Amino acid sequence: MPNRMYDLIEKKKHKVSLTEDEISWMVRSYTQGEIPDYQMSAFLMAVWFQGMTDEELTWLTLSMADSGDRLDLSGIDGVKMDKHSTGGVGDKTTLVVTPVLAALGVPTAKMSGRGLGFTGGTVDKIESVPGARSELSEEEFIRVLRAVGFVDVAQTREIAPADKLLYALRDVTATVDSIPLIASSIMSKKLAAGADRIALDVKCGSGAFMPEQSSAEALADQMIRIGTMAGKRVIALITDMDQPLGCAVGNLLEVWEAIEVLSGGGEERLRELCIRLSVEMLLLSDRFSGTEEEAEAAVEQVLSSGQALERFLHFLREVGGDPSCLFEGTDRTKPADPEQVLRSISPGLIREEICMEKSGYLTSCDTKEVGMVSVMLGAGRKNKEDVIDPAAGILLKKKLGDHVEKGETVAVFYTNLPEVLPDAKTRFCNAYTVEDSKPEETPVIRRILR
Amino acid sequence: MPNRMYDLIEKKKHKVSLTEDEISWMVRSYTQGEIPDYQMSAFLMAVWFQGMTDEELTWLTLSMADSGDRLDLSGIDGVKMDKHSTGGVGDKTTLVVTPVLAALGVPTAKMSGRGLGFTGGTVDKIESVPGARSELSEEEFIRVLRAVGFVDVAQTREIAPADKLLYALRDVTATVDSIPLIASSIMSKKLAAGADRIALDVKCGSGAFMPEQSSAEALADQMIRIGTMAGKRVIALITDMDQPLGCAVGNLLEVWEAIEVLSGGGEERLRELCIRLSVEMLLLSDRFSGTEEEAEAAVEQVLSSGQALERFLHFLREVGGDPSCLFEGTDRTKPADPEQVLRSISPGLIREEICMEKSGYLTSCDTKEVGMVSVMLGAGRKNKEDVIDPAAGILLKKKLGDHVEKGETVAVFYTNLPEVLPDAKTRFCNAYTVEDSKPEETPVIRRILR
Repeated sequence: MPNRMYDLIEKKKHKVSLTEDEISWMVRSYTQGEIPDYQMSAFLMAVWFQGMTDEELTWLTLSMADSGDRLDLSGIDGVKMDKHSTGGVGDKTTLVVTPVLAALGVPTAKMSGRGLGFTGGTVDKIESVPGARSELSEEEFIRVLRAVGFVDVAQTREIAPADKLLYALRDVTATVDSIPLIASSIMSKKLAAGADRIALDVKCGSGAFMPEQSSAEALADQMIRIGTMAGKRVIALITDMDQPLGCAVGNLLEVWEAIEVLSGGGEERLRELCIRLSVEMLLLSDRFSGTEEEAEAAVEQVLSSGQALERFLHFLREVGGDPSCLFEGTDRTKPADPEQVLRSISPGLIREEICMEKSGYLTSCDTKEVGMVSVMLGAGRKNKEDVIDPAAGILLKKKLGDHVEKGETVAVFYTNLPEVLPDAKTRFCNAYTVEDSKPEETPVIRRILR
Repeated sequence: MPNRMYDLIEKKKHKVSLTEDEISWMVRSYTQGEIPDYQMSAFLMAVWFQGMTDEELTWLTLSMADSGDRLDLSGIDGVKMDKHSTGGVGDKTTLVVTPVLAALGVPTAKMSGRGLGFTGGTVDKIESVPGARSELSEEEFIRVLRAVGFVDVAQTREIAPADKLLYALRDVTATVDSIPLIASSIMSKKLAAGADRIALDVKCGSGAFMPEQSSAEALADQMIRIGTMAGKRVIALITDMDQPLGCAVGNLLEVWEAIEVLSGGGEERLRELCIRLSVEMLLLSDRFSGTEEEAEAAVEQVLSSGQALERFLHFLREVGGDPSCLFEGTDRTKPADPEQVLRSISPGLIREEICMEKSGYLTSCDTKEVGMVSVMLGAGRKNKEDVIDPAAGILLKKKLGDHVEKGETVAVFYTNLPEVLPDAKTRFCNAYTVEDSKPEETPVIRRILR
């Protein structure tokens, strides 16, 4: 017999817009277990086909944001910023951008996820530093934000529980890959996390959930529309994930690489993206009234002066972390050699150099596959319950467009699992194509939507 | 995490055809409770949008037919016929056609449903005759078929249980109105019921599940394709349900009207459809080699001679029914006055004459609404558990195209529920439009698909 949820499925099937009332009733009732999964999954499949209007999506997002606790950041002065990356391989920009902004007086309060499958997670990276904790209480969160000027923590269970339930259902009913549903899922967590202005880093390419730039742009556009309708200022950068970002894939290895950038160095494309994100967020904030060039100079200054690095180390100390393994001796201005860093927490770590079987240019990379190789080495999780090895990872010696000689080292694997090496090497080498002619260079920042 | 059902949803979403193996696995696993409802409902919604190929539908239908017992009619000589109506208001053709065919030596084995909502059901009509039973064991079914030459029984629980489960899920997830799913649901029960050749009466109009003729034709076409691929010969008649069929709506009242036709009389359009269905089924069978005109003459002959009526009365006796209330005295060739028939089983029955508020031609009818009025009077069920009143119903005195005077009786209600009369009268009158000019006549048989 028809009931209210039945009627909503029927409407969505025929692309009739739902009202604010209907959507908030649906989210509330589903979260309370009053709508059976079989009706919600039929509804979600109808959304997969028919989409949702901007109004419907905003109501859905707000209802999900309101389904649990919302973080109250009103005790912190000024406009609070948030940053979100849609996920990829080797993305450690948060570890650079949040201390840079803090050094410039712009507070960033960020809830991050853990890695799953080919994607890494900021929380795992922070926790790879000996002693560092990411699961903070709300009181600790506010205290660290006040003391350091930024905070990166694990998402608590109480944030947007409706989104968590809906995502779990989508995950088993083949309705994850719907741009409106992805957009509202991400934005519900951003809205519940309480920030005023949000920068989105939407990845596209072979290591992103959106391989095509057009899909990434559609997702970015949708999230900006939802955020704007919800009263937030939102920008998005569409950035390249056709190869891992930077040279490090792994947890402590990525912290090391973030410190490289925070010390004024770092791989070129990674550095470019960190600076661009910082500049865009600085301009988005209310703490800066200069031009884009002046913003860029300000960001460069806190990187070269070590002020941003100091903020990062302060943050690590506040969450219990001991960063001494990352530096040589007592000099806290330049990071130590990466292998030395890893061995300091995992003395028996195996080092394996990887070579290509022929000479030529690296022309393309199956980035998800590189991410999965890092998972094999111990740096990530196949399932949520898996334990990660903070020292495991891949250090890339060559990037797309580089020439490699047969037998030349293109990457170094670090692992405590020698048995996976043969298969990991094969998969890694097969993930790259080596060709005779140099490929065209693609920019790391493909587009900025303000 | 993806699993096999997940992959099938994903395929259907993208309109990739499923294999025979995948479909039979899916139906079997779902029936065994190994696929959760939330995955099946997402799949069904994807089918609602993407449809199914003829091959997919045939595999689905056969898998559902094989999910329970199949009736074994091999002990009965010759080709066995089946007839199916998609349901409507006042459709008592089965009560006429099956004895006509039996009288002509063509055995029909039919499983029928009960009425629900605006539609009546053959089983309820048979059971309105005092003593008659419709729930027969398989042994009784075969015995009656052998003795009488036809049998009409209630569908047993063991027939196509997969269809029953899927239908129940579709009913609560707004995926009933999918032509491929309707077609495979109907045909799975027809195939499991064991007949060799099947005639489908697909209703269209305001009292049918398919209001549009184009949808009715699409459904008929789909069922014929499934039946043909499953090795059966199938024909379909697209017939009018823009007003109730015949003059009687109700259970014992419809048996009375069937006897009118079986006695060589009956309302014109009802009689025309009964004859046409009988002729088409006779031609479809292997027991007749003459022309269409000869078939028509043969059908007219068993009606006018009383041979068909005799078969019907024989059937009623075999299932325990006492038809004496339907006739005046001992003359079993002509039915009694309808009101006398009803009062014989329900002496306190209330009679209420219905008039229109203005004069003019009856130009259109909301037939579902007339069906719902008969339910109000006690002749049908709002819910499966409701008990019906065999004596309740509506006797129509006017049909579309007839002229009515203000205050002239257009229908008589029979009920034991006086409290519903005011509302029932209003709804009945509102279901008809009365206009000044005579409408064009529409044929009762709109199209025949052989």
